[in-house]
Amino acid sequence: MKVRLLTYTPHPIKSVFTAARTCYSPSTPTEIWTGDDSKERMHSLIDKVIGAGHQSVLEHISLTFSIEGISRSCSHQLVRHRIASFSQQSQRHVRVEKGGWVVPPSIENTRSARRIFQSTLEEMHSCYERLIELGIHPEDARYLLPNAIRTNLVMTMNLRELYTVSEIRLCNRAQWEIRGVFGAIKGELMKVDDLRGFANHLQPICYHLSYCPEPKSCGLFPVKGGTTVD
Amino acid sequence: MKVRLLTYTPHPIKSVFTAARTCYSPSTPTEIWTGDDSKERMHSLIDKVIGAGHQSVLEHISLTFSIEGISRSCSHQLVRHRIASFSQQSQRHVRVEKGGWVVPPSIENTRSARRIFQSTLEEMHSCYERLIELGIHPEDARYLLPNAIRTNLVMTMNLRELYTVSEIRLCNRAQWEIRGVFGAIKGELMKVDDLRGFANHLQPICYHLSYCPEPKSCGLFPVKGGTTVD
Amino acid sequence: MKVRLLTYTPHPIKSVFTAARTCYSPSTPTEIWTGDDSKERMHSLIDKVIGAGHQSVLEHISLTFSIEGISRSCSHQLVRHRIASFSQQSQRHVRVEKGGWVVPPSIENTRSARRIFQSTLEEMHSCYERLIELGIHPEDARYLLPNAIRTNLVMTMNLRELYTVSEIRLCNRAQWEIRGVFGAIKGELMKVDDLRGFANHLQPICYHLSYCPEPKSCGLFPVKGGTTVD
Amino acid sequence: MKVRLLTYTPHPIKSVFTAARTCYSPSTPTEIWTGDDSKERMHSLIDKVIGAGHQSVLEHISLTFSIEGISRSCSHQLVRHRIASFSQQSQRHVRVEKGGWVVPPSIENTRSARRIFQSTLEEMHSCYERLIELGIHPEDARYLLPNAIRTNLVMTMNLRELYTVSEIRLCNRAQWEIRGVFGAIKGELMKVDDLRGFANHLQPICYHLSYCPEPKSCGLFPVKGGTTVD
Repeated sequence: MKVRLLTYTPHPIKSVFTAARTCYSPSTPTEIWTGDDSKERMHSLIDKVIGAGHQSVLEHISLTFSIEGISRSCSHQLVRHRIASFSQQSQRHVRVEKGGWVVPPSIENTRSARRIFQSTLEEMHSCYERLIELGIHPEDARYLLPNAIRTNLVMTMNLRELYTVSEIRLCNRAQWEIRGVFGAIKGELMKVDDLRGFANHLQPICYHLSYCPEPKSCGLFPVKGGTTVD
Repeated sequence: MKVRLLTYTPHPIKSVFTAARTCYSPSTPTEIWTGDDSKERMHSLIDKVIGAGHQSVLEHISLTFSIEGISRSCSHQLVRHRIASFSQQSQRHVRVEKGGWVVPPSIENTRSARRIFQSTLEEMHSCYERLIELGIHPEDARYLLPNAIRTNLVMTMNLRELYTVSEIRLCNRAQWEIRGVFGAIKGELMKVDDLRGFANHLQPICYHLSYCPEPKSCGLFPVKGGTTVD
Repeated sequence: MKVRLLTYTPHPIKSVFTAARTCYSPSTPTEIWTGDDSKERMHSLIDKVIGAGHQSVLEHISLTFSIEGISRSCSHQLVRHRIASFSQQSQRHVRVEKGGWVVPPSIENTRSARRIFQSTLEEMHSCYERLIELGIHPEDARYLLPNAIRTNLVMTMNLRELYTVSEIRLCNRAQWEIRGVFGAIKGELMKVDDLRGFANHLQPICYHLSYCPEPKSCGLFPVKGGTTVD
Repeated sequence: MKVRLLTYTPHPIKSVFTAARTCYSPSTPTEIWTGDDSKERMHSLIDKVIGAGHQSVLEHISLTFSIEGISRSCSHQLVRHRIASFSQQSQRHVRVEKGGWVVPPSIENTRSARRIFQSTLEEMHSCYERLIELGIHPEDARYLLPNAIRTNLVMTMNLRELYTVSEIRLCNRAQWEIRGVFGAIKGELMKVDDLRGFANHLQPICYHLSYCPEPKSCGLFPVKGGTTVD
């Protein structure tokens, strides 16, 4: 898996600040935008607004990622997020090459399981090739391709939705692969000076609730009403 | 594949009529709702409003479908539609049983292809079972399950979005399986007296444009600017 | 103001139950739908799923309301909710009649303010009429109509979004009029046997967080980290 | 009214190209992104994809505008577009100053109408001030403020939605003020080299249908089935 932040709204701090100030100010957005507020002052207002739960101003920051080499299991989960834009490599139109699959760590780390997995995947891919040779169109031959097959996507998501999705996908109950995607996304944001202050807020939901909403906690926070962690 | 309309907004004609009239009338929605307009009169206004491209009134009709036994290829396409609600059978939590897969017609109708397909699917399922016996969690073992595996969903979509999605998915360029889903959805609506008048508008986009927007037409309509069908 | 539940998805408990069970069951939605689970058993599963924060199953319940006689201040706030469908009486096409305005209680209860308000509104409406007599189109004459002018809407919203919106609009920080709309909506749901169990969950956000996220609490819950209420 | 493009996704042509290519290519988005395709080649693919009606790739371009000095009539229409983000100056929290109102051209150009309009607006504002002096909170005093009062917004919209909204709001049937907003938005895009190629596609819907869907045409295109313009 490889995740890369391709591009994002320039001046993210100023954009969010201008949006937040516009709501409470007689000044026009242009006046606020071209003002000389320091980054510290801007981040201070942003933290106050976000802290009060008014996250809508974060929607003005758009982030575009390349997400490469994830399984189709993972992409099927990923595209369930509806406030985002996806352009995904098509299995109808792009012929799948041998070896392009994801091995779950639990299988990688169990020798007998790994052997079964690898040989099945290889057999499956050669059957896929044979179907195509028999004249079956790749869009139908792919019905025997496994979830493990790699896919690539370009994903654009705004920062508010990224907060919300991270609450679910950074949770230890999320599957390892999609948790990895959002961990990597957070890592990408941490590399950018103007995004680092926002990236720190990308956390599983228990950090915001101060309790675990699931029936059983992973140990980070106790369940609601519970005094100790299970 | 089995598609069934489980439930829908009662009084769909009156609902759309009330919404449409509210925009242009001094009467309240309650007055319009409890009025004694005939179904003919109501449908006549609706047709006029829809014909003028003001489809937003159709959003007040919500339709809930059971979609059963489609492949994971098809469900991956289906959940890309973002103005809809999906509850899908989870491969993380529900163990997959043998035999529950979809065979594309092109494979079903080619003897040698069918043999390869069936034996590969059986082999794959038995490897899935062996991985689970080795202690691999089903959520990881499923990485070698193929796209052909069946899944079930409950899908709720409003009527306006169903119009828009049908423009794409009833097109002959859509893959046979998802085209079949939306054909079956249209069939379900045709069975209900109060929905039949709406169902007739579920058509591929060329019916609305009077041309095919794709580079090459299937023959229903000529491409834009073309005088004859390819 | 008058709020009325015009129509809603029939069998709401069974709909949500079927959606929730589909995710974790080998049974098809049709099998679950036609099963003989009691309402108690169904509500028990629903409460468990909602309690764990998995509210997406609530999206399958669609509710259509008539909202009548609210001010344009209030409707401007209302239509900001984007996961909903609105059909609103048009000031471009419907001529506004005298007397159709909303008086805020703070003005109603202050004699001198009430007098100013009423005479200004009456003057304004007669100027509106004079502009139309001068040949100005109502869509332009309305520029001098005040926020207080009444409007009607048909609003369709799913139950999940209604939960989310109620968190904000039932808060004592929301303006009295839109808080009244969502109070009345909750009241409408409480009247329906099959919706009452859901209506109880419509609460301001502090009930779900166990703290007030705003800088200053209204008194229902202390602010985050605070031990006493201000 | 003043409209200004504050910021937008950098490298818009490359972003859309990368998204479009990813769907049909074995290459990763990073490889496509860092490739050396010329702008001409990129725009040629984009035009082909858009021409075929596959506009989803345009969603990766996010545009943030300052929209200043529009009436509340206009902003009430504007925020009805749900696939967009708005941060609007609040009449609850920002006290309205005298003179900040919009005069419709039809009123501006009719002397008697203009006189009525101006004196009514001035009277109304002074009553607003008197209510506040009497202790009425601005959020209630604003009930007598007219639609003409100016407001400011920061709006972020993706390019696909901007196409769709422009189809409606650049139509001659749209009200002059919101048509002006989207005309100005198009003008802002035309000023930027990398957006000009996209801006040319911002057109009323009749340009895309080759007919007018309304019952009566403004004259640009004939109504559907009509051979001449009314």
